Amino acid sequence: MNPQMSGTPKKNLMLFGGRAYPELTEEVAKHLNVTVTPQQAYDFANGEIFVRFEESVRGCDAFVIQSHTAPINQWLMEQLIMVDALKRASAKRITVIMPYYPYGRQDKKHRGREPISARLIADMFKTAGADRLVSVDLHTAQIQGFFDGPVDHLWAMPLLADHIRGKYAGHDLTVVSPDAGRTKLAEKWADTLGGAPIAFIHKTRDPLRPNEVVSNRVVGKVEGRLCIVIDDMVDTGGTIAGAVKQLLNEGAADVVIAATHGILSGPATERLQNSGAREVVFTDTLPIPAEKRFPSMTVLSIAPLLARVIQEVFEDGSVTSLFDGNA
Amino acid sequence: MNPQMSGTPKKNLMLFGGRAYPELTEEVAKHLNVTVTPQQAYDFANGEIFVRFEESVRGCDAFVIQSHTAPINQWLMEQLIMVDALKRASAKRITVIMPYYPYGRQDKKHRGREPISARLIADMFKTAGADRLVSVDLHTAQIQGFFDGPVDHLWAMPLLADHIRGKYAGHDLTVVSPDAGRTKLAEKWADTLGGAPIAFIHKTRDPLRPNEVVSNRVVGKVEGRLCIVIDDMVDTGGTIAGAVKQLLNEGAADVVIAATHGILSGPATERLQNSGAREVVFTDTLPIPAEKRFPSMTVLSIAPLLARVIQEVFEDGSVTSLFDGNA
Amino acid sequence: MNPQMSGTPKKNLMLFGGRAYPELTEEVAKHLNVTVTPQQAYDFANGEIFVRFEESVRGCDAFVIQSHTAPINQWLMEQLIMVDALKRASAKRITVIMPYYPYGRQDKKHRGREPISARLIADMFKTAGADRLVSVDLHTAQIQGFFDGPVDHLWAMPLLADHIRGKYAGHDLTVVSPDAGRTKLAEKWADTLGGAPIAFIHKTRDPLRPNEVVSNRVVGKVEGRLCIVIDDMVDTGGTIAGAVKQLLNEGAADVVIAATHGILSGPATERLQNSGAREVVFTDTLPIPAEKRFPSMTVLSIAPLLARVIQEVFEDGSVTSLFDGNA
Amino acid sequence: MNPQMSGTPKKNLMLFGGRAYPELTEEVAKHLNVTVTPQQAYDFANGEIFVRFEESVRGCDAFVIQSHTAPINQWLMEQLIMVDALKRASAKRITVIMPYYPYGRQDKKHRGREPISARLIADMFKTAGADRLVSVDLHTAQIQGFFDGPVDHLWAMPLLADHIRGKYAGHDLTVVSPDAGRTKLAEKWADTLGGAPIAFIHKTRDPLRPNEVVSNRVVGKVEGRLCIVIDDMVDTGGTIAGAVKQLLNEGAADVVIAATHGILSGPATERLQNSGAREVVFTDTLPIPAEKRFPSMTVLSIAPLLARVIQEVFEDGSVTSLFDGNA
Amino acid sequence: MNPQMSGTPKKNLMLFGGRAYPELTEEVAKHLNVTVTPQQAYDFANGEIFVRFEESVRGCDAFVIQSHTAPINQWLMEQLIMVDALKRASAKRITVIMPYYPYGRQDKKHRGREPISARLIADMFKTAGADRLVSVDLHTAQIQGFFDGPVDHLWAMPLLADHIRGKYAGHDLTVVSPDAGRTKLAEKWADTLGGAPIAFIHKTRDPLRPNEVVSNRVVGKVEGRLCIVIDDMVDTGGTIAGAVKQLLNEGAADVVIAATHGILSGPATERLQNSGAREVVFTDTLPIPAEKRFPSMTVLSIAPLLARVIQEVFEDGSVTSLFDGNA
Amino acid sequence: MNPQMSGTPKKNLMLFGGRAYPELTEEVAKHLNVTVTPQQAYDFANGEIFVRFEESVRGCDAFVIQSHTAPINQWLMEQLIMVDALKRASAKRITVIMPYYPYGRQDKKHRGREPISARLIADMFKTAGADRLVSVDLHTAQIQGFFDGPVDHLWAMPLLADHIRGKYAGHDLTVVSPDAGRTKLAEKWADTLGGAPIAFIHKTRDPLRPNEVVSNRVVGKVEGRLCIVIDDMVDTGGTIAGAVKQLLNEGAADVVIAATHGILSGPATERLQNSGAREVVFTDTLPIPAEKRFPSMTVLSIAPLLARVIQEVFEDGSVTSLFDGNA
Repeated sequence: MNPQMSGTPKKNLMLFGGRAYPELTEEVAKHLNVTVTPQQAYDFANGEIFVRFEESVRGCDAFVIQSHTAPINQWLMEQLIMVDALKRASAKRITVIMPYYPYGRQDKKHRGREPISARLIADMFKTAGADRLVSVDLHTAQIQGFFDGPVDHLWAMPLLADHIRGKYAGHDLTVVSPDAGRTKLAEKWADTLGGAPIAFIHKTRDPLRPNEVVSNRVVGKVEGRLCIVIDDMVDTGGTIAGAVKQLLNEGAADVVIAATHGILSGPATERLQNSGAREVVFTDTLPIPAEKRFPSMTVLSIAPLLARVIQEVFEDGSVTSLFDGNA
Repeated sequence: MNPQMSGTPKKNLMLFGGRAYPELTEEVAKHLNVTVTPQQAYDFANGEIFVRFEESVRGCDAFVIQSHTAPINQWLMEQLIMVDALKRASAKRITVIMPYYPYGRQDKKHRGREPISARLIADMFKTAGADRLVSVDLHTAQIQGFFDGPVDHLWAMPLLADHIRGKYAGHDLTVVSPDAGRTKLAEKWADTLGGAPIAFIHKTRDPLRPNEVVSNRVVGKVEGRLCIVIDDMVDTGGTIAGAVKQLLNEGAADVVIAATHGILSGPATERLQNSGAREVVFTDTLPIPAEKRFPSMTVLSIAPLLARVIQEVFEDGSVTSLFDGNA
Repeated sequence: MNPQMSGTPKKNLMLFGGRAYPELTEEVAKHLNVTVTPQQAYDFANGEIFVRFEESVRGCDAFVIQSHTAPINQWLMEQLIMVDALKRASAKRITVIMPYYPYGRQDKKHRGREPISARLIADMFKTAGADRLVSVDLHTAQIQGFFDGPVDHLWAMPLLADHIRGKYAGHDLTVVSPDAGRTKLAEKWADTLGGAPIAFIHKTRDPLRPNEVVSNRVVGKVEGRLCIVIDDMVDTGGTIAGAVKQLLNEGAADVVIAATHGILSGPATERLQNSGAREVVFTDTLPIPAEKRFPSMTVLSIAPLLARVIQEVFEDGSVTSLFDGNA
Repeated sequence: MNPQMSGTPKKNLMLFGGRAYPELTEEVAKHLNVTVTPQQAYDFANGEIFVRFEESVRGCDAFVIQSHTAPINQWLMEQLIMVDALKRASAKRITVIMPYYPYGRQDKKHRGREPISARLIADMFKTAGADRLVSVDLHTAQIQGFFDGPVDHLWAMPLLADHIRGKYAGHDLTVVSPDAGRTKLAEKWADTLGGAPIAFIHKTRDPLRPNEVVSNRVVGKVEGRLCIVIDDMVDTGGTIAGAVKQLLNEGAADVVIAATHGILSGPATERLQNSGAREVVFTDTLPIPAEKRFPSMTVLSIAPLLARVIQEVFEDGSVTSLFDGNA
Repeated sequence: MNPQMSGTPKKNLMLFGGRAYPELTEEVAKHLNVTVTPQQAYDFANGEIFVRFEESVRGCDAFVIQSHTAPINQWLMEQLIMVDALKRASAKRITVIMPYYPYGRQDKKHRGREPISARLIADMFKTAGADRLVSVDLHTAQIQGFFDGPVDHLWAMPLLADHIRGKYAGHDLTVVSPDAGRTKLAEKWADTLGGAPIAFIHKTRDPLRPNEVVSNRVVGKVEGRLCIVIDDMVDTGGTIAGAVKQLLNEGAADVVIAATHGILSGPATERLQNSGAREVVFTDTLPIPAEKRFPSMTVLSIAPLLARVIQEVFEDGSVTSLFDGNA
Repeated sequence: MNPQMSGTPKKNLMLFGGRAYPELTEEVAKHLNVTVTPQQAYDFANGEIFVRFEESVRGCDAFVIQSHTAPINQWLMEQLIMVDALKRASAKRITVIMPYYPYGRQDKKHRGREPISARLIADMFKTAGADRLVSVDLHTAQIQGFFDGPVDHLWAMPLLADHIRGKYAGHDLTVVSPDAGRTKLAEKWADTLGGAPIAFIHKTRDPLRPNEVVSNRVVGKVEGRLCIVIDDMVDTGGTIAGAVKQLLNEGAADVVIAATHGILSGPATERLQNSGAREVVFTDTLPIPAEKRFPSMTVLSIAPLLARVIQEVFEDGSVTSLFDGNA
C-alpha cells in the first residue's frame, strides 16, 4: 500500500459559447482547432434560461464566449448561469470572454442617484465564479479596474487601422473624434496612422439642460481631407451620422467611419448608409446580420484575435506582447 | 464652538417599483398611504437599462418591488440596477421584494453540470447591495438559505385557502398535489382546510430516460369528491391540466385549481380554460393581463399582504406573527 | 544563472480522517490503495480539540473524511479545525467529505426566528478553507446550493435498491414514503425498481398546534404487497416504526425498511427490531456499532462509492457519469 | 397621500443566553434590570441543536451570552446557531459575549501543520453574523485582532487584585508567573498591587523533545514572601500546583492563586486543594459547580462587569473608561 | 423588571483629521462649528505610524479628512490606520474624505503588467472599514466605481469657474485642454462659461516609443483670445507650462491656468511663474505652502464645500442638489 | 479537429524585489540561481509609486521580497502595488516575503481606541492579491493568525544561537530578556544553548501613568556571568542599552546583544556602541548601512534561509522540517 497517490496534472482547454452569436464561437473554435463543448441551452416559457453541459468539465480551463447583443439582459444572464454551472461542476479556471462589455457606457454616475452598472456587471461575474475577463475596446479603460482579477483588454484598433492604412494609403487623413470624449482615442489613431492631424466635434450644452446639445462645431482642420471618424461603438448612429454631415459641410473631402462595436440599433443602418460616408468599418464583436449590412460597410472578423488570446492565456504566454506592450 | 454635532436620527420609508408591473407597486403604495418614488427608467436601443431616481434617497429605508414576469431577465437586471443605484446613493437599508422568486425552480442540480440559478440570484442581489429579501411562496423553502441575510418568506396559502373555504364550504374536499414533489404542500393545505384527505399524481419514468413520463396514476381517494389541485405556480399549464383530466377520469366530482403564481406562459390560458376545472384561483404576484383571464379565473390581490409586511419591517414589528408563527 | 526556475507540477492525493469513525476512512484508504495521513488528534480536558499532521501536506490534494455521528458538534469542530490546519499548511485543494451532512434537517426556517443551520455549516467550511464538499443523500438536494463551490452529491439509492432488487425479486412491491415530504423520493425508488406503485403516510395536524400529529392515514395501495419503506435517515425510529405498524394494520404482506443514514439514536434499535419489519437496510455513512445491530439489519458499505468519487475528483474524471448523469 | 412614511427609530436591548451557564445570563439580566429573551433550545437525539426565539427580535440590539465550558464544542455551536437565527430574524446588531474565549490557547501554530483555531472561532462568528465580540482576559491580547470588527476586551485583573489587596494588605507580596509566558502579566499585577517584585518559574526543555519539561527553577525572590501566583486560566491545575510546590520548597511564606478562568478539568480541584495554597481565587466566567469548590476557594462574580459593559455598548458610552483607558 | 431596555438612538458627528494638512481640517471644523476630535498621532523612529483617539468614538458618525500630499504613502497609511482604529472602537459609520484621491492617475493599465493602484486604494479603505468616500474632481469619474459603496464625487469646477467668470467678464475666452484626454472637461467648462469655444494640445507620439512626445500642435482657435487652460491637477507643471508657451506662440492674447489640485512638485512653482500665464488658480485640496506661492497665484478654499457636504451626509440631505443634480 | 486542446502545465518561479533593499533580493537570487525579474519602479514627484514588470509574468509562481525599513510606508505601498500588478497580470500564485513584518508591534490595542495595524497589514496584502506570506521572527507569533492563508514563520534564532554557541563556548551564559514580555523567548534561547539560566529586567510602572517606567530591576542571576541579551528587534536601542548598563551594574561579567531585526533608528548605533556590550549581533532582514555599523557589530545574512524556504515552497517541500518541526 502506498502512502499517497501521485500523478502529473493535465491541463485541458474547453470552449463554451452562449446562444447570442454562435457563429463567432464556432469561428474561434476553428482557429483554435477545437470543438465547442456541446450543451443544452433553452428558455423556459417565462424566459428563465436553462443550461447544462453534455460532457464532463471537471478540471478544465474553461473559456466562455458570449456576444452581448440585444436582448442583452438575456445573454448576460445566460453567460452568468454558464459560469455558475462551470463553477459547480468543478472547472479549474473560468475565463469570461465578452467582446463587447455590456453596460460599459454606464461606467460612472453621470449625475447623482445613478447606478454604475459596469461595475455591477464585473461584480456579478466575480460572484458567479469568473476568474478572469477578456474584452475588446472597453468604453473606458478604467473598466478593467472594476473587476477584482485579471482583465485582458484587447484592442481592435490595430485591426481597423490596418484596413484603413491599406485602403487609403496616400490620402491626406484627419482623424476625427465625434465628440470631445474620444479625442484621446483619436490621438492614438493618429499616431498609429503615422502622425495624422486630429479634430473633434465640439457639442455645446446649456448647463441648465445638460442633456440637450445646443450646437456642434468642428474643432481642427478637416477641409479637403479624408476624415476618419473613429469611435468605440455605434449604437443608433445619430451622433456619428451628424458628425459626418458636419464634416462634409465644413469641406471634408470624404469621410470614413471606423468603430469596433457595431451595435446598430433601430435607425442606425439607414442613418449610416445615408450619412454620406464613403465606407463604414466595424468588427464583428457583435453580430451584424445581413439585413443591417449595406455595400459600403466592411466587417472585419474579431475571431482570429480572440483565438490568439485564448491560446496565450491557456499556455501562460503573453497577451501584452500581441499589442507591442500596449495591452 | 461645540465639540460635536448631534441630532436624532429619522427613519424614512421610500417605495420603489420596477417597470414590470407598476400597478402592483401602486396598489402597495395605496395600502401604505405613500407615493412611489419617481424615477427615470428606460432601455437603450440595445436593451441596456438606465435608471435614475428623481429624489434624494440618502438615508432612506428603501423597498424595491419588481414582479418577475417575462421578459424575466430584463426585469431581474432592472431590479439589480435599482439596488446598485440605491446603494451608491446612500440608501440606509435596501429590501428587495420579489413576490415571485425568479429561477426558483433551478434550486438544485437536477442532474450533473447544471447551474443552481436560484442561489446565483440570491448572491447577485447581495452583491448589488440588498440587505434583505421578501418573497412569496418560494418554490422550495430552502431558497431562504441561499441568501446571506434575512428573508421574509410570505405565504399566500392562507389567502387562497380562505377563498376556497368560503366558496366551497360543505363540499367533500380532497387536496391533490399534481406531482409527488408537492405532497407536503398538499398536507399543509389539508390541515388548513380542517383535515381533508389528500392525493397526488404518481408519474412513472423509465430510469434510462428520466425526462419522459411513462404514465400517470392518481394515488389517494378522489372519487365523488371536489378536488382542490394545488401548486406554487402554473407555467404552461400542461401538468396541471393533465391532473385535472386524470382526476375527472377517475371520478372526481369537480376540480378547482389554486396556485400562488400565475406565470401562464404560451398555451396555459387555453389549457386551463379547457381543462374541465370549475374554477382557477391565483394571486397577482405576477401580472395576469386581461387577455389571459377567463370567466372562471379568480385573481386575488397580493398587495395588502405585501403592504402589511413592509410596514412591519419598517417598524421593526413581527412578520412571523402575521402567519401565526409559521413564517 | 537562469532567469527563472522551472519545473513540472506534481499532484498528490492525501487522505485525512477524523476520529468519529476511523474504520470508514481506513476502508476508503484500502479501496484507494493509499494510507491515511498520520496525525495527532486529541481533546484538551475542557473539550477543546487539538490536531496536528505528522507529515508535510504542502501542495497536496487533501480529502478529509469525517462521519457526523454523536457527539456531532465535536466531530464537526474537529473537521473544521483539520481544514484550517490544512489551509495554513499550504494544502493545494481541500475536499471535505461528510457522508452524512450535519444539520441537514435544519435546511430552512420551519417557523419564524429559527436558524438555517445547514447553510451555516456550509459557510463555516468555506470560511475554514474548504474548496469543495462531497456528501451522500442530502436531506434536501437544495443544500448543494448552500455551499459556494462545487458539491458532489452522491446517491446511495442505487446501492440500496440493488440490494432490494436482488433479494425481493418476484414480490409485488409498493414503495412507501413514511411522510408526505418524501413522496418524490419514493417516486424515484419506484422508477428504479421498475415501476412499482407508491404510497405515503398522511399525517394530519391541527393548524393551531402544528407540531402535534392528530392522525396517520396510508394513501395508496398496500394491501397484500411487500412494502419498501424508504427514507434518507432514521434517527429515533419513531416515524418509521409507526409507518410499519400502520402498513401492517392496513394489510401489507410484509415490510422492508431502506434508508441511507442510520443515525439510530436512543430507542431506535429497539423500535426497529420490534416494528414487525422483515428487514432493515442501511449504509454505513454513520457508524452502526455492534450493540445497535440485530439479525434482520443489513448494513451496506459506502466506502467503495466514496473511494471511486475521490479517485474521479483527483483525476478530474466525471462523478456525474457514476450515476448515469443524475448527480 | 404622503410621499414617504417617516418615524423616529427606537433602540431596544435584548439579552439572549445559551444553555451552558444560564445562571450567569440571569445574573447579568438582573444587573441590567431586563429579562432574558425566552427561547426553545434543545438537542436532537444525535446531538444536533435546535434553537428558536419565542419573541420577535426584529430590529433589536442583541447581546448573546454563552459560557464556553465543557462540552465546549456543543456550546460553541449553540452560540453560532443563535447568532445565525438572530441574523435571519433581522436583529439590528449582534454582540457575542464569550467571557472565556474558546480555543484561545490555539492562537498560533506552536509547530508546523497546526491550526490557528482561535482565528477560526473569530471567523466563524463573523460568518454567522456577529457584529462585535466581548470577552474577558483573552489568552493573548492579539486575539482581538483575529476578529474583523470591534472587540471589547475586558480585564478581570482589577476585580481579582482588589480582592487580594483587601485581604492581604500589609503582607510582603511577590507576584509570580507560573511560566515564562505570563511574566508580562505578572508585571501588570505588580504595578496594580503598588510595586511588588515579580518572579517566574523557568522550565527547561530539551530542544529535541520540546514537549517535555526537564526541570523547573524559580527566577526571582520568593523567600519569606506571600506569593501571588497569577494566570489567565487554570485547566487541569498541573502547572499551577507544581508552581505552588516549587515556591513553598524555595521558602515562600505562603501562596495565593489568582486566575480569571477556572476551567478546572479532571484532577484540577484535587490538585489545587492539596497544593498547599492558602487561597485560590477565580471569577465565574465559567461555571464552577459546587462539587468543584472547596473551602479555600473564592469565586468572584463577573456579572456586574458584563452588565456595565453591555449598558455602555448599548448606550454608545465608553468601555475604555471602565478600565482607566486601558481596554 | 422590564423585559427589554429601550431608548432613542442619537447621532453624533465627529470630525477627525490626519497630520498632512491640519489647517484644512480646522477650517472645515470652523464651518461646521465643531471641534476636531483630539488624538495622538506620531511616527515611530522607523516610520511606523501610531494613532490613538483621546475621546470615546463609540457610535459616532465619523468623518476622517486627510490631504494626500507628499509624502503621500505616509498620509495614506495614516488615514487607513485611523479608519481601522475607528472601526475597532465602534464608530457607527466612517466617511473617508480625500479631497485629492491618491494614485488617481493609475486608474487603468496604460500598458501590460501595470497595477491599477486607484482600485487598490479603494479596496484598502474598504478593507480598513470605510463605509463611504468623499473626493473632489477625481482624475476620471470612473474611479467612483472602484469603491464598493457610496462615493460623493464633488466638483471644484463651479468654484473655479465662478472666479474666472467674475474676473474675466467681457474677455473673449477659449477653454483649452492641455492634452487630448481633458477635452471633455474643457467642454464642460465651456458650457459653464456660457458657450466659449474650446481647443486642445495634440501631442504626437511614435507608436514604437509611446512615452516620447514628438511634437505638440494646438487644435482649435486661440489667436487673440484669452485662453483658460484647465486641468484636474498640476504636478511638475511641465505639460501645462508647455501648453501656455504653445498658446502664446500661436497668438493667444493671454493665458490663465485653472486646476483643482495643486500638487506642485519639484520645479512646478518656477515653471508656472515663468510660463507667461497671467494668473494661476487652484483650490487647496492639497496644501500649497507659502514658499510655493507667487503673486499671480490664487488659491480658493475648498473647506466650505467640504463642510456643506459633511453636513448633508450627516443629515441625510442631498449632495447631488449642491451641484444642480450633476454629482 | 480535436474536441479539446490539452497540455501539461509548467511551473515557473519568478523572483521580484522592491527598491528598499535590492542587495538582499540579489543575494537570495544568487542562492536560488535565478535572476530577479526586471521591472520599472519609480516615484512620481508627489511620491506616488509606479511599477511595471518588463517580462510576462502570466502563470508564474511569484515571490515578492521587500525589506520594510524606513521610509516604511513607502516600501509597504510599493510591495502592495507590486502584488496588485502581479494579480492583474495573471501570476498564478503570489508569495509575499517580508523578512521584517511592518507594524508588528501594533499587534493589539494596548489601550482603547487604538488600531491593530498588524492585522490591517495582513488584510491589505490579502486584498491586493497575496496568496501567502513569509516572514522572520514575528513580534508575536499570533500575527500568523492575522492573515487568512498560509504564513511561513521563519526563525532566525537558530542562526543567531549558532553564532553565539560557536563564539562563546565555555562561558557561563545567562540569557536575559530586556523586559518581561520576552521572557518566553529567553526560555527558548536557554534551551537552545543547552540549558542556560535566564533573567529579565522588571520595569515598574505607576498604574496611573502606564507609559512611564519608574524603575528597573534585574530578576535572575547574572553576577559574574556572560549575559546574552536577546530580543526580536532593536529600534532606538534605549531599552536594550539600559538593560546592558543594568546588567553590568549588577555584576555581569560581560554582555552580548543578539536580535533578529536591526531597525537602528536615530541614536541606536551610538547607544549600542557605547552601551558596554562586548558584541552586538543582528541578521540583515533590514538593511544595516555601513554608517550604522561599528567594529563589535556582527551582521549575519538571512538570504540563505529565505532562499531555502522559497525553494521548499516552490517545490511543495516542507518548511517545517527546516526548523525541526518547530515552524
